Amino acid sequence: MKIIIIGSVAAGTSVAAKARRNREDVEIVIYEKDKDISYSGCGLPYYIGQDYITRDNLTPRNPDWFKKRFNLDIKTKHEVVAVDHKNKKIEILNIETGDKFSDNYDKLIFATGASPVLPPIQNIENDFIFTLRNVSHADKLYKFIETEKPDKAVIVGAGYIGLELAENLIERGIDVSIMELSKLPMSNLDEDVSVHIRKELEQNNIRFIGGEKLTAIEQKDNQKFVLLESGERIETDFVVLATGVKPVSELAKSIGVKTANNNAIIVDKYLQTNLNDVYAVGDCAMAFSSIDSSPMWVPLGSTANKMGRVCGDHITGGKLSFQGILGTGIFKVCDLAVATTGLTERQVQRSGIEYIVHHNFKPNQTEYFNTSSEMMIKMIAEKSSGKILGAQIVGKNGVDKRIDVIATAISFGATVEQLFHLDLAYAPPFSTTKDPVHYSGMVLNNAKNNDNPIITPQEVLDNPGKYIIIDVRSNSQYNEGHIPNAINIPLAEIRNRANEISKNKELVVHCNKGVSGNAAQNVLLNLGFERVYNLSGGYKNYKLISEI
Amino acid sequence: MKIIIIGSVAAGTSVAAKARRNREDVEIVIYEKDKDISYSGCGLPYYIGQDYITRDNLTPRNPDWFKKRFNLDIKTKHEVVAVDHKNKKIEILNIETGDKFSDNYDKLIFATGASPVLPPIQNIENDFIFTLRNVSHADKLYKFIETEKPDKAVIVGAGYIGLELAENLIERGIDVSIMELSKLPMSNLDEDVSVHIRKELEQNNIRFIGGEKLTAIEQKDNQKFVLLESGERIETDFVVLATGVKPVSELAKSIGVKTANNNAIIVDKYLQTNLNDVYAVGDCAMAFSSIDSSPMWVPLGSTANKMGRVCGDHITGGKLSFQGILGTGIFKVCDLAVATTGLTERQVQRSGIEYIVHHNFKPNQTEYFNTSSEMMIKMIAEKSSGKILGAQIVGKNGVDKRIDVIATAISFGATVEQLFHLDLAYAPPFSTTKDPVHYSGMVLNNAKNNDNPIITPQEVLDNPGKYIIIDVRSNSQYNEGHIPNAINIPLAEIRNRANEISKNKELVVHCNKGVSGNAAQNVLLNLGFERVYNLSGGYKNYKLISEI
Repeated sequence: MKIIIIGSVAAGTSVAAKARRNREDVEIVIYEKDKDISYSGCGLPYYIGQDYITRDNLTPRNPDWFKKRFNLDIKTKHEVVAVDHKNKKIEILNIETGDKFSDNYDKLIFATGASPVLPPIQNIENDFIFTLRNVSHADKLYKFIETEKPDKAVIVGAGYIGLELAENLIERGIDVSIMELSKLPMSNLDEDVSVHIRKELEQNNIRFIGGEKLTAIEQKDNQKFVLLESGERIETDFVVLATGVKPVSELAKSIGVKTANNNAIIVDKYLQTNLNDVYAVGDCAMAFSSIDSSPMWVPLGSTANKMGRVCGDHITGGKLSFQGILGTGIFKVCDLAVATTGLTERQVQRSGIEYIVHHNFKPNQTEYFNTSSEMMIKMIAEKSSGKILGAQIVGKNGVDKRIDVIATAISFGATVEQLFHLDLAYAPPFSTTKDPVHYSGMVLNNAKNNDNPIITPQEVLDNPGKYIIIDVRSNSQYNEGHIPNAINIPLAEIRNRANEISKNKELVVHCNKGVSGNAAQNVLLNLGFERVYNLSGGYKNYKLISEI
Repeated sequence: MKIIIIGSVAAGTSVAAKARRNREDVEIVIYEKDKDISYSGCGLPYYIGQDYITRDNLTPRNPDWFKKRFNLDIKTKHEVVAVDHKNKKIEILNIETGDKFSDNYDKLIFATGASPVLPPIQNIENDFIFTLRNVSHADKLYKFIETEKPDKAVIVGAGYIGLELAENLIERGIDVSIMELSKLPMSNLDEDVSVHIRKELEQNNIRFIGGEKLTAIEQKDNQKFVLLESGERIETDFVVLATGVKPVSELAKSIGVKTANNNAIIVDKYLQTNLNDVYAVGDCAMAFSSIDSSPMWVPLGSTANKMGRVCGDHITGGKLSFQGILGTGIFKVCDLAVATTGLTERQVQRSGIEYIVHHNFKPNQTEYFNTSSEMMIKMIAEKSSGKILGAQIVGKNGVDKRIDVIATAISFGATVEQLFHLDLAYAPPFSTTKDPVHYSGMVLNNAKNNDNPIITPQEVLDNPGKYIIIDVRSNSQYNEGHIPNAINIPLAEIRNRANEISKNKELVVHCNKGVSGNAAQNVLLNLGFERVYNLSGGYKNYKLISEI
């Protein structure tokens, strides 16, 4: 049996390695049009920013390594230009020599990845305009920075790569502006989460320009400008286009492989396309939700690796199947880690599921440690069952741990009540006696049972005058800033002053982050008030969200 | 209803807080014989070692805070000396005044904690001999270090507290020896895990004395000595006894409350004892395994908090119940984090379950980051079902994340195959494209299916001559050190030189950590060799274990 794989980054090499692990008696050839293989695409921004990361770090393995270990042939600078699936033949262009030749296969695997989506503007091919998708792109940008020593950059697009690059450019001492069509960075996250990212950018002197469209990039004499729809002209030394990626599937389509609306190749759980013996893995393939099996396209190295392993196993007779994804992702921008798993509130709203949501501000570890810092977990659960639907977390330390625990819990259909009971590891350097994840579970479970209903700041903002708002913080905190028309009754006085509060209206109580608000809510509920909501994330969260 | 709680550290205050959250109309009184309440027992070693941790950090809340927030009375320096359960009365000694008085209850909660187990030696009450269980103990030790400026310490007992304190004493510039009855530190862990702790101690110039018994502590003129059974006399400036703790349950026993062999109070899932209206929570109470419901006593703040909350809920009409524990724990000693969850290999061996085990050496994050470091995950699963039974992890960074993910997975009955499919968060600063947890799942799943059987170094050490051992590392690595009688065939040569290997004997292949060994195993299996084991954790693991 002969296996031909097109593309040799994460997914393609995973297919090859797993196929060889299973069988010695198959022939495996990979064609790669680029010169680099098996590189860490996610590492490119760090290569730009960190002195100690070398180019060799990015591409630790060459074709010779794969030959020795896995007895397989990787031909770089070889582009597969045509496929004749009827006869199971492909035509290959040797990019260096210009020669063409053909090869045959029993199994054909598309691991063609994704390519940058470029904005529809003129003069985009220019020596000061960059993208950052492969090692060649990184080489070009790296060389530019080393030789031209630019002072300022404009990044177009505030997704993963744009934000990671922003951090790494300021590490190089470059002044960065980052623009984005959406009002806030990371438009796939909820706005009450991505507002934290905007704040982090501002705190690091990165200018964020939201809700703006790029109309042109100009060069006049020695000056370069980015032009915005608003009319603003931003002078810059270079521009990086990080406006997203799209699946590379043209060749697959040319032989009748079916793709989704976004051009991702449709595959089954063994990564097989609609054509026999034709497979697709990695960023060019469509994944699916492990919760409800709906199609999902989240092009990440972790998914590419899993797909590759499953496909390599399947084509050599193994039993593995792809189990789908939760859309889990994480990135770091300056000191902020941002992570997501499962559904966002926006996605849940679209699905029509009745849900509960909570913003939980908690330290990652015992607070007297000087490495302790606060994170915010936004968690969403189904109201009827308490099943966790998704979570988004922002914070300095320990974000990756909590998102992975929650992702694991979601994978097993956990409820918010079950979260509280998890026996997680506690010691002061690592967590708090009740972990932030436990708190999210506790609060949402109390909300699920209607014992302690929660209200979001957005709900309060959207309905001015609907609720009596009781601010249970101290007088001095209240005087520094408060929700319009809020009444100040500090928590310690709430039992004695409850008679001041009208029983005819719905109440919203709040403190600074939510814990004292919850205590006040309990007092009022136990004193016979019937409709008392605790404000999710307290005044801190309200203030942030009111500034969106 | 009147609730009386005896003890006001983690569990007792949790009961009170939850009871008040549920109901305003109950009276709550806590009696605490100590002067400090609601303190972080786990933080005591860090208070000793870290300049920035103040005494106030340890005891952030006083009775007044609880009164204001929860309307409950905490009476410190008040010891409950007798209980008349028939009449639901208690007698209390005011330690400061010597007065006695009585009080009555509807519900009585024992949150009496645990106390140090002291070794049976003479002169143990001495001004240079310390324990470290409560804030008063910490005060005494702290003051001694500040005023006497000691140079050297002997810690007796290498459990959590002993090891954490060792780290914090060397932070203070004190020379530390730590002795332990067992051969290795942390005797509740498997030896192939705790050998890493011994290594860490040695690397930090902490002398570890294993398999030794303390026979006496002597003071002669101005010199102090610790005497060992071996005859050795160690001169020291002070001694800390960290030889474990035992449940405090004498008062409970006096009214007929049933206890287990270790004196822990036996409770049901609502934390109720065998007596009506009498409960026990925290370190004085017995917990149970959430896997098989067998009794477990693992006195930790995280469990105490959960028990307290459940008990407080139950006595005020709530529906919560305690779901048991996995025995999850973590601690840090110098640069090493050590964590465990579920069963150890020793426990599994005792249970008679047929199991598979693997030692997985992997970096916590993408290796080209200068914060990347290696961890070792020892994972154990049931052979028949693939269900994860337990894991122990040692490493510098990211250990807490992996143990929590595994603890969560175990809670939901996960199999090793399911581990591989988890959609965990990947970005270079946080993990590797396949997370260490994925690798453990993959390798154990291959072992479960008998596709890639694993053998432990111990098995090889215990059966010299039984296996043909093939070392697939480079010649130079082999020459630097190898397993006795191992044959060196570097991986790249294994396909061509397979004919040199006898097919009549069981083979063990290995590389340095296991990955290339697995590749070689696959080649040999695919070439028709039938009994080929990969050495768990490779030569690195073998070498460590051979030195136990």
